[in-house]
Amino acid sequence: MKCIRCGGEAVYRRVYSGEVYCARHFVSSIEDKVRSTIRRYRMLDIDDRIAVGVSGGKDSLTLLRILAKIEKSFPKAKLYAITIDEGIEGYRSGSIELASREASRLGVEHIVVSFEELYGSTLDSMVEEAGRRGLKLTPCSICGVLRRKALNYTASRIGVDKLATAHNLDDEAQTFIVNILHGDLFRLVRTKPVTDYRKGFVQRIKPLREIPEKEIALYAYLEGIEFQSEPCPYRGVSLRSDVRMFLNIMEDKHPGIKFTVVRMWDSIRSVIEENLPEVELRRCRLCGDPSISDICSGCSILVSLGLRSYQPLT
Amino acid sequence: MKCIRCGGEAVYRRVYSGEVYCARHFVSSIEDKVRSTIRRYRMLDIDDRIAVGVSGGKDSLTLLRILAKIEKSFPKAKLYAITIDEGIEGYRSGSIELASREASRLGVEHIVVSFEELYGSTLDSMVEEAGRRGLKLTPCSICGVLRRKALNYTASRIGVDKLATAHNLDDEAQTFIVNILHGDLFRLVRTKPVTDYRKGFVQRIKPLREIPEKEIALYAYLEGIEFQSEPCPYRGVSLRSDVRMFLNIMEDKHPGIKFTVVRMWDSIRSVIEENLPEVELRRCRLCGDPSISDICSGCSILVSLGLRSYQPLT
Repeated sequence: MKCIRCGGEAVYRRVYSGEVYCARHFVSSIEDKVRSTIRRYRMLDIDDRIAVGVSGGKDSLTLLRILAKIEKSFPKAKLYAITIDEGIEGYRSGSIELASREASRLGVEHIVVSFEELYGSTLDSMVEEAGRRGLKLTPCSICGVLRRKALNYTASRIGVDKLATAHNLDDEAQTFIVNILHGDLFRLVRTKPVTDYRKGFVQRIKPLREIPEKEIALYAYLEGIEFQSEPCPYRGVSLRSDVRMFLNIMEDKHPGIKFTVVRMWDSIRSVIEENLPEVELRRCRLCGDPSISDICSGCSILVSLGLRSYQPLT
Repeated sequence: MKCIRCGGEAVYRRVYSGEVYCARHFVSSIEDKVRSTIRRYRMLDIDDRIAVGVSGGKDSLTLLRILAKIEKSFPKAKLYAITIDEGIEGYRSGSIELASREASRLGVEHIVVSFEELYGSTLDSMVEEAGRRGLKLTPCSICGVLRRKALNYTASRIGVDKLATAHNLDDEAQTFIVNILHGDLFRLVRTKPVTDYRKGFVQRIKPLREIPEKEIALYAYLEGIEFQSEPCPYRGVSLRSDVRMFLNIMEDKHPGIKFTVVRMWDSIRSVIEENLPEVELRRCRLCGDPSISDICSGCSILVSLGLRSYQPLT
């Protein structure tokens, strides 16, 4: 197998398109794809201040690396890395270290914010407390909501224009199917490649949404990115893991099917969103964040655990 | 376990709702559900002439049985059973016999029409011919299109108002997911519980779309319906069989999920269909059936096999 760009020795064959690449051209094909995703969805302006949510895993470190490369052509743009320290004993500290090292290598300011400072408790303690109180809260349901809230809070505080997250093609295809299995039309329509501008929420963008997970893994490997590969100790069996497995089997049998699924989501979303009534956003009575109800979902979780969120940003 | 209606010995627990039934009340719960599906989607008028597509399997014989019971309350309505004989050696003849026997037991006129009379060839010969010509036509893709065409032709010729098919909840949930995996937005929107009225197509209805497949199997068993249980010899491995397996696993873990999926389909379809441009239907140049292109998909298959369809109905 020879690289289609330079005829050199190939390292990867992209089954769904037939392209074959050497290491160097595989890396540039990924970077080109991210550039084209950014253009296609108009994710960035030339002078954007961009925060990247960096967990220390392969996806987020790859995103940071690629955005840092792209940013070089846009001297007015500025990049920050944000890591949320949920407080997971023996797991999180290693990945924060990796994120810090990579950020400093790239000359990007790295901000670490913990659940402990924002909410007065670590995830580990919250999970214990939820158990003691007999609450039906899984670690992932607590962490998902509160991490998202923490990212938005931190990005708002720094005053960035965009918050980039490292959701890849696999994540996106899974999310669409999970929303269908949950019957959640609202979330299906509101989860977008670029979120709508809403006062109080930093616009979120997903520049990796068209890159398959395994191509990100190869990119990280070829680029020598050191990442946290250990799975989260709380990672359990969920509907999403079944969907992940199903889509992987389907992709093996029908290469390109994850792209088809994500395109389908885009088509359905674009028709429906024009016809859904605009949802009135209020302010959460406790933390001041935008919310569709009196108390936002983050504060609801915190209150049920006997905790309080940060004070409103003004 | 005691029946929630009469306290008698239970035979079935409906996991997704918690209802528990004895044999008699399970049977009536299914019939009530079909009645409510018919009402919910306004599938029938009191004086409808209804053709039922009857293959001789459990679903279609159950549908025929239930519609015959319901019809008794509507003396102006009239029922017909249509069986398409595709011409599958050693498989189809048994099921035609079963369909005939059941129809005559119910006092319903039974019409059998074969691929041979309509298209001049059996499915077996078409499959052979496709092989000889090196065509990429699977037996299922030939049969699906031509059986549908044959059903519509026969229903039109009898002059019925509705054509009822036995698609169940499992079929519907699978079809939605299959359309997503195929990226087929058009079919996702156009496949409906009651098809739109379009000149040249008999309106199709699916009264069993809210009954899970396994409840139909139990109904058929309890009612002593004798059905063809042997699988079609052409039944192969397809994307749909993977989707079927996936949804069955999901239903086991999350009872009721097939309902959620079908409701989701209904919601998405209802928003999108109002916003899709109406497709202009032409007449197929060869058979006169309505078609979106110059030659309908059935005639395209037939022509590629060196065959011709029936002459236009006038």
